[in-house]
Amino acid sequence: MADVARLSINTATLHRLTLREAIEACARAGIAGIAPWRDRLQECGVAEARRLLRTHGLRVSGLCRGGMFTSAGWLDDNRRAVDEAAEIGAECLVLVVGGLAAGSKNIADARRQVRDGIAALLPYARAAGMPLAIEPLHPMYAADRACVNTLAQANDLCDALGEGIGVAIDVYHVWWDPSVEREIERAGRRILAFHVCDWLVPTRDLLLDRGMMGDGVIDIPRLRERVESAGYRGALEVEIFSAENWWNRPAEEVLRVCKERIATVC
Amino acid sequence: MADVARLSINTATLHRLTLREAIEACARAGIAGIAPWRDRLQECGVAEARRLLRTHGLRVSGLCRGGMFTSAGWLDDNRRAVDEAAEIGAECLVLVVGGLAAGSKNIADARRQVRDGIAALLPYARAAGMPLAIEPLHPMYAADRACVNTLAQANDLCDALGEGIGVAIDVYHVWWDPSVEREIERAGRRILAFHVCDWLVPTRDLLLDRGMMGDGVIDIPRLRERVESAGYRGALEVEIFSAENWWNRPAEEVLRVCKERIATVC
Repeated sequence: MADVARLSINTATLHRLTLREAIEACARAGIAGIAPWRDRLQECGVAEARRLLRTHGLRVSGLCRGGMFTSAGWLDDNRRAVDEAAEIGAECLVLVVGGLAAGSKNIADARRQVRDGIAALLPYARAAGMPLAIEPLHPMYAADRACVNTLAQANDLCDALGEGIGVAIDVYHVWWDPSVEREIERAGRRILAFHVCDWLVPTRDLLLDRGMMGDGVIDIPRLRERVESAGYRGALEVEIFSAENWWNRPAEEVLRVCKERIATVC
Repeated sequence: MADVARLSINTATLHRLTLREAIEACARAGIAGIAPWRDRLQECGVAEARRLLRTHGLRVSGLCRGGMFTSAGWLDDNRRAVDEAAEIGAECLVLVVGGLAAGSKNIADARRQVRDGIAALLPYARAAGMPLAIEPLHPMYAADRACVNTLAQANDLCDALGEGIGVAIDVYHVWWDPSVEREIERAGRRILAFHVCDWLVPTRDLLLDRGMMGDGVIDIPRLRERVESAGYRGALEVEIFSAENWWNRPAEEVLRVCKERIATVC
């Protein structure tokens, strides 16, 4: 199974904690990495977050998130996200690309906007040395969060856009895809992040009912082995949105279980 | 927009009605077609249902459903479904193929079981003259309902299995798919059914929060035109699982709105 030394905690997993609290909880638990969300980062202050991360020696496996290229004001906001990611030493900026524009039913058009948006952001990200990681989201989020719904689409975008861009693979979003193994191989060295959680049966909410690794039906080791065969050596980032379960437990318990499950079922 | 004469009502849309009540409601509303679910059909009795359908001159655009090839007893149950479909003169038997077997995390294996199951059922269906319609289900149902999640997969199965098999295309399940238009063209004359409803934003439940056509984000006319360009001339079947909204309204209102929306937004 997987090496706990590669574990990183996405702050969505510790929803009720401030970034300072999450950093300190990870450090106490002997966890080497963290991936903040921007709302928590901004609440903490970027400079203060940078200081805390250095003090505790945490790697930053990614910043969540840029993207939302079909919403107003996307370019300025994404440039700020690149700056923030660079300032805290994030290994990539994760892009959740956005869904349909307001009032639109044209998903092909949304996909064109996303491609053009990433192309427009990319020179800025390259200049900052910040890799952009396109995260394909599960098709159930196509309307309102991300119209890039398969790894094949993300790989196509990378092919079209050139250097400085890669993919973030979250098992929750891609496990069902008949072409996922082929597309992981195709992504190869462009895999910038690997996120784990589990798909529960039944799933009671489209957003906030993700499972702890091992509690659902995803064959996580198979996917981890594939990304490693493709060359990925980065963090195993745990991102669990769980309003009715894990968010209500003490951080120490959540982190202890994450460590156990990385070692035993991932 | 679409021709109301092609409208068929899937009985899931009239969840609270018996099959007799649904048949009579459709007939009163001047609707030409219906597609029963098997639980309602069996409750009514197949012979009695056949009599009622003939009395009211309703076409039967499909029987829902066979499939579930990863569950125990699937072969006998599917043969009964073929018999029932033939007895009521259904135009096809819709297959919801089943998800992961109990306790399994091996979706590739589930997909092999489905292929083998359909292959085993097919001679019986051919002998009965009953076309089997593989319905790809949205990826959010991959674990527990259907591991065929794209039209490409369904088309691949048809290619592998030969005569007597086709696809049922429900806009709810395929609208997000970047390859859906290409795969509709590929399906061509194998399109045996076309189901409509809408994807609501937000969607509050994975199963029971489908929308009335026009209330969501699916570009239904685009998909209808594509299936027609591919040669489809069959029914437009409305299947709306809506526990909090449409299931609570009088059947007369639901059917009136279905007719309006077929004529105005489909």
